[in-house]
Amino acid sequence: MNDLNNESRERYGVEPGWAFGKCFDVRWSEVDAFGHVNNLAYLGWCEETRNAYIESLGVPSFTRDAPGPVIKELGFTYNRSLEHAARILVTGRVAWIRNTSFRMEFAVWNGTQVGHGHAICIWMLNSTGEKVVVSDELRHLIVERDGAELLSSQVQ
Amino acid sequence: MNDLNNESRERYGVEPGWAFGKCFDVRWSEVDAFGHVNNLAYLGWCEETRNAYIESLGVPSFTRDAPGPVIKELGFTYNRSLEHAARILVTGRVAWIRNTSFRMEFAVWNGTQVGHGHAICIWMLNSTGEKVVVSDELRHLIVERDGAELLSSQVQ
Amino acid sequence: MNDLNNESRERYGVEPGWAFGKCFDVRWSEVDAFGHVNNLAYLGWCEETRNAYIESLGVPSFTRDAPGPVIKELGFTYNRSLEHAARILVTGRVAWIRNTSFRMEFAVWNGTQVGHGHAICIWMLNSTGEKVVVSDELRHLIVERDGAELLSSQVQ
Amino acid sequence: MNDLNNESRERYGVEPGWAFGKCFDVRWSEVDAFGHVNNLAYLGWCEETRNAYIESLGVPSFTRDAPGPVIKELGFTYNRSLEHAARILVTGRVAWIRNTSFRMEFAVWNGTQVGHGHAICIWMLNSTGEKVVVSDELRHLIVERDGAELLSSQVQ
Repeated sequence: MNDLNNESRERYGVEPGWAFGKCFDVRWSEVDAFGHVNNLAYLGWCEETRNAYIESLGVPSFTRDAPGPVIKELGFTYNRSLEHAARILVTGRVAWIRNTSFRMEFAVWNGTQVGHGHAICIWMLNSTGEKVVVSDELRHLIVERDGAELLSSQVQ
Repeated sequence: MNDLNNESRERYGVEPGWAFGKCFDVRWSEVDAFGHVNNLAYLGWCEETRNAYIESLGVPSFTRDAPGPVIKELGFTYNRSLEHAARILVTGRVAWIRNTSFRMEFAVWNGTQVGHGHAICIWMLNSTGEKVVVSDELRHLIVERDGAELLSSQVQ
Repeated sequence: MNDLNNESRERYGVEPGWAFGKCFDVRWSEVDAFGHVNNLAYLGWCEETRNAYIESLGVPSFTRDAPGPVIKELGFTYNRSLEHAARILVTGRVAWIRNTSFRMEFAVWNGTQVGHGHAICIWMLNSTGEKVVVSDELRHLIVERDGAELLSSQVQ
Repeated sequence: MNDLNNESRERYGVEPGWAFGKCFDVRWSEVDAFGHVNNLAYLGWCEETRNAYIESLGVPSFTRDAPGPVIKELGFTYNRSLEHAARILVTGRVAWIRNTSFRMEFAVWNGTQVGHGHAICIWMLNSTGEKVVVSDELRHLIVERDGAELLSSQVQ
């Protein structure tokens, strides 16, 4: 489930600071008319990496009745372009956790870093739209994996 | 909701035999590395045209507790390619109705016919996966619009 | 080509400060398992709005041999969710122009603002990857439409 | 590159008659509002499997100046639905080869067969749109792998 290990670190040129990753093949439908991977494909890989990260913590898979991440904000910065049939690895980590929200960061690797992004996630019950406090157990697992900062919870 | 009228018939070169249509712009993300619209984009337009067709008959919009179409079979035949920023019109009609299923046909127009497709749809309750008989009222509306054939209902 | 006018301003609840917009229907394939529009769909609409904005300035359509926008950075902030079959209007404007780059801003409207985003675009020749200075003519058209700020051009 | 082997045959329940396959994870963006994988996702996996199949024969990767497959016809039949996070294997084979075209067949496996599809491919030079005869070398490799039927070449 976690594709990041010593071998993949070396093959994809992943720099220190990441504990979780997922591999992807660039698909033909993700390439644009100039032969470059479409900007949105990167954000789709980040989405899958985010879901795999959360699942790898033992959180039950996405249902209406269990809390899950709802995206408040997304961003991505592109360093260089990618072409069809490239194989890439996307790393994900949690930078900070507030009461009911957290910030994930992502980077795309293919020899060197291709680009990096982030997502602010609200921890929410999908059936009701209610914000839910991130449990101590989950908080502990995330701090242990990524050294995520625990922020005081005044906002969000 | 129905984009097919005398003006659009002429502009898009729609041949007789169709009573319903929907316009689409080709999106940048739908174009492949050779500058041609990806094969799957056509099937996405057919999907939207199918939904709009059904909605235009007054069927309540898609919920788990009302019957809706579940696809058993899809097909598409391509006559020629399309490029970025092309504007196209997709026509849809019902060819036949059985007890709990029907066949929709589609064509994509842009001056002349670009291609044509079909879908075999099962009328199904999404909450239970149970097949539902197409109501007399719906059957009547479809026959009136498209002259759809009513087939005896031994299969499906 | 520009869908923003007095009638659409009122229907979609567009606030002052925007001169260009494009309408979209939410597609079935853009809705996720919780019935909400997928986060990436918003960025796809921004992409189409960006292309339409540039085309509306009379820039020749996307070819390898003419300069066009290459995305350096993307972002989006979500205020609330959208459901299937919603009809939305996306507004776009240029906030500033540097020598070979500019910042576009976007907002999604559906009665009130659903969310807002931005893109930093590099003006680039796709055949060579060479940065190109935004022409005085284009600069003039953008300032006239949006009152875009002209920044000194040291970087980018 | 070929994910089909004794272990994956057993895990995914692949029946005899296939020599090539590719694994995929169902992505969150491929799931619809009823929790089922969207119909078009299956055709996207077939597209990737087709490209990997051709690449595995040593055909140079997709460029404008080398012949490659252009789709004339696509089809898919669905046996049952799939949910988020399912892991599936798609098998591909060539059923027949004509002068400048061939038919590929696909099946999606996840314990048992989920559905099956096909594509009629024209072998074409993308730079000119000219049909190209499938080389004896390629023909030989395909017959050897799949026992594909060599049809007389009157049509296509």
